[in-house]
Amino acid sequence: MIGAESLVRTLLASGVDTCFANPGTSELYFISALDRVPGMRCVLGLFEGVVTGAADGYARMTGRPAATLLHCGPGLANGLSSLHNARRANSPIVNVVGDTASFHRPLDPALTADTEGFARPVSAWVRTASSAVNLGEDGAVAVQAARTSPGRIATLIVPADISWGEGGHVATPLPVPAAPQAAPGTVKQVAAILRRGEPAVIFLGGKALLAEGLPVASRIAAACGVRLLAQQSNARIQRGQGRVPLECVPYAMALAQRALAGTRHVILAGIHCPVALFAYPNQRGSVCPNDAEVHVLARPEQDAVQALKALAEELHAPAAPAVSLSAPPEPARGPLVREAVGQTLAALIPEEAIVIDEGVSFGAGFYGQTQASAPHDWLQHTGASLGMGLPMAIGAALGAPGRRVIVVQADGSAMYTVQALWTQARERLDVTTLVLANRKYAILAGELANLGGQPGPVSGRLMDLGNPELNWVKIANGMGVEAAQAQDCDELASLLTHSLGRRGPFLIELLI
Amino acid sequence: MIGAESLVRTLLASGVDTCFANPGTSELYFISALDRVPGMRCVLGLFEGVVTGAADGYARMTGRPAATLLHCGPGLANGLSSLHNARRANSPIVNVVGDTASFHRPLDPALTADTEGFARPVSAWVRTASSAVNLGEDGAVAVQAARTSPGRIATLIVPADISWGEGGHVATPLPVPAAPQAAPGTVKQVAAILRRGEPAVIFLGGKALLAEGLPVASRIAAACGVRLLAQQSNARIQRGQGRVPLECVPYAMALAQRALAGTRHVILAGIHCPVALFAYPNQRGSVCPNDAEVHVLARPEQDAVQALKALAEELHAPAAPAVSLSAPPEPARGPLVREAVGQTLAALIPEEAIVIDEGVSFGAGFYGQTQASAPHDWLQHTGASLGMGLPMAIGAALGAPGRRVIVVQADGSAMYTVQALWTQARERLDVTTLVLANRKYAILAGELANLGGQPGPVSGRLMDLGNPELNWVKIANGMGVEAAQAQDCDELASLLTHSLGRRGPFLIELLI
Repeated sequence: MIGAESLVRTLLASGVDTCFANPGTSELYFISALDRVPGMRCVLGLFEGVVTGAADGYARMTGRPAATLLHCGPGLANGLSSLHNARRANSPIVNVVGDTASFHRPLDPALTADTEGFARPVSAWVRTASSAVNLGEDGAVAVQAARTSPGRIATLIVPADISWGEGGHVATPLPVPAAPQAAPGTVKQVAAILRRGEPAVIFLGGKALLAEGLPVASRIAAACGVRLLAQQSNARIQRGQGRVPLECVPYAMALAQRALAGTRHVILAGIHCPVALFAYPNQRGSVCPNDAEVHVLARPEQDAVQALKALAEELHAPAAPAVSLSAPPEPARGPLVREAVGQTLAALIPEEAIVIDEGVSFGAGFYGQTQASAPHDWLQHTGASLGMGLPMAIGAALGAPGRRVIVVQADGSAMYTVQALWTQARERLDVTTLVLANRKYAILAGELANLGGQPGPVSGRLMDLGNPELNWVKIANGMGVEAAQAQDCDELASLLTHSLGRRGPFLIELLI
Repeated sequence: MIGAESLVRTLLASGVDTCFANPGTSELYFISALDRVPGMRCVLGLFEGVVTGAADGYARMTGRPAATLLHCGPGLANGLSSLHNARRANSPIVNVVGDTASFHRPLDPALTADTEGFARPVSAWVRTASSAVNLGEDGAVAVQAARTSPGRIATLIVPADISWGEGGHVATPLPVPAAPQAAPGTVKQVAAILRRGEPAVIFLGGKALLAEGLPVASRIAAACGVRLLAQQSNARIQRGQGRVPLECVPYAMALAQRALAGTRHVILAGIHCPVALFAYPNQRGSVCPNDAEVHVLARPEQDAVQALKALAEELHAPAAPAVSLSAPPEPARGPLVREAVGQTLAALIPEEAIVIDEGVSFGAGFYGQTQASAPHDWLQHTGASLGMGLPMAIGAALGAPGRRVIVVQADGSAMYTVQALWTQARERLDVTTLVLANRKYAILAGELANLGGQPGPVSGRLMDLGNPELNWVKIANGMGVEAAQAQDCDELASLLTHSLGRRGPFLIELLI
């Protein structure tokens, strides 16, 4: 058995059955092995940032790693930005990167690059395979590394001669280490703090944001009068009717610091202490008050849900109060202003939808407006590198079949990974994309205003996407995705409803 | 003066007057400084691979570095693939990468990454600025590093607080070091080899491929009966009517090794010894015979043209024979088969055109067919990372105004950096793009055949771009570029002629 086949069989044996791929010549043995070995779902992306972003979306919805298949250092390089976002989401991913044959590398052919160097900044685990005999085992270790809590990126670099070399064997899957539990002493200490009754906030992260963890946190909040909060951007929050509503820290630092003002104790459950995305002259970077005490109940890699359960027991907290949310709103009418677009979205989010939020400036308020929508998952922009929405939708749709994906997508951001539309069409994925076409990098103008400046002749042009105007209907159609423009909320509601009632992708360009 | 302004003024003083940009918040002080300081041409790209690819094209045509402006580690990451190609072309580039404020970095906000780690594999020079006072000097050193022969990539990382910090001053431009000259002894040794009259090849690279160097090499070739060759892919070759014709080493290793068979001496003038792009089981990686002696007349960073002149003098080589090329062909008629498309291109290349060749498999023969076209420059794919054509066209057009750019562009490759079309439209660049729409990764099928395999159910689908079909007219129109489809050579000739007679970009989708 050649190395490549042993790797494919090992990945499958280890539970990795989905591969997002943009292969090149060095990966031919791997993809040929896929012809012989059934069971791996392969999804082609026409750009590597689509491939790695899809793997992020898949991991967020399944909790399991997909494999990516990338071509040499430069191919991996194209996937790094999405891997940065995935790393910040603690998404497990196994990157398989084909590379120059080891005996050819000293000749420095054109594609040769420092592949390990590219991989390290985004990967918790990097290995260059050195023998076909061991390649199966390398794959099993990579999967184990990816599945180590809280979810990590593992990059296995496979020189072509290791792929084609004989002597490979399928490795036994390695155990997935359980997430470490918080120490009982830590739980008791946090309980003692909360019993004091001083103003406190519990920051929830990771699995504490899902349907199992939130009611436990809600018990504690009700029992002790503490507030629950999430950081500004989170990998996945389960919310909507029947679920515990959860606010996120606002993006604007003035609002964020106001939201935390007076807090004496900050309890961290599965998350690091939230900080501002950007620094400003003469401003603090933490959202928490200087004199607040920070207490770590569970680090991101620890089992935050178990820690919350232990804390609730320690506090003898009664059962969580029933969640009572008002009914979702009706769709708005009239112009596509922020509030009205958010209201229309809130009205029409279908049950069990997956909302991917790369709304950036225009869409910043939609999270707050959709608290009472039908139950859904909300996926945010953890790494702040633009272009996560369209690729993540691919992986989310494949990882959670039967559920509608709605992408709230700023237009400038969408362009970074626009090739994702083609894969959505090819795989006939149930994705509705709302392109918020303000035709500018509005966040830059906003941040410039924060700094007391305003766009001039050069900087203004560098923020302007309106000359020429991007036409998203044509772009989407050119990649096989049906699309239409909405000029007001009535058209938006009509098109959104239309898209939800059909199979396959649909794109709505909102002329905001 | 704030640091950012001192950097802008220093870049201008050092001769860097073009900036390809995809800015983010960390770069706001830089772009605001551009509002106050005249003289920097700023060109927006909607994806960083467009920005860095444009800088490569600009450098190849001007010999001078442009600046790029990129946003933090993930923004730089998106530009790495094009920088890989630029590094292989020895293109001078100065990357300015804004980053997290230095005092904010320890809090690890979402965009924070190992920016230096991303930069190192592609950069000959990397520095993270540590003080606004020194930022001007950092810029001057970066330009000097970029302009050091044979042309290098310099990456200057500028944390936001260094940009906004006071105390900056404009640095004096630093001298550009002259390319080192080949030692006189080396010239004599090579001359002695050539006088033996044994079968020899001179490989030309770098500036030896331009109009000044080629006639000198031609003198030597005629005097000694040696052959001249270029490697498979080169940064820039000046050719066509009135110029010395030059063959490139074929891509297919069997053909390449046959072309070099019997060669006793390989002379390298401004180039490393050519090697195969890919390795194959049980095959040699060098294109040169095992028993050939390799002699370095000039390393890539040395002045190869001067070395050739000295060699010609040493050999008392008479003036170069007049170049006599047959007339260019007439445009072909009928179906869009390879030979006919190449012939039509050869017939219609206008004088002083710049041809950017990312034709990959279908376009592989076009170089040979256009030897007798009107005088033009031919720019090839030095790093083999896909997606260089559309971005390079931006930089080439801006670096050589008044000259038509023709991009010979494979469709699969075009998708990696498709956003470049928008910048072509915005800047109204005289670029004609020929998309060779075979709707597959044909090179993969070809390489699989080389390995004795054939596409199966999975691998075949991973090479197929036809489901759904990309429509390049719609994609181009969606980004503001006029476009049309050609179904046969008559339509191709008509559309190509049409595009050459107008200003601004035009895209022709060849339904091959």
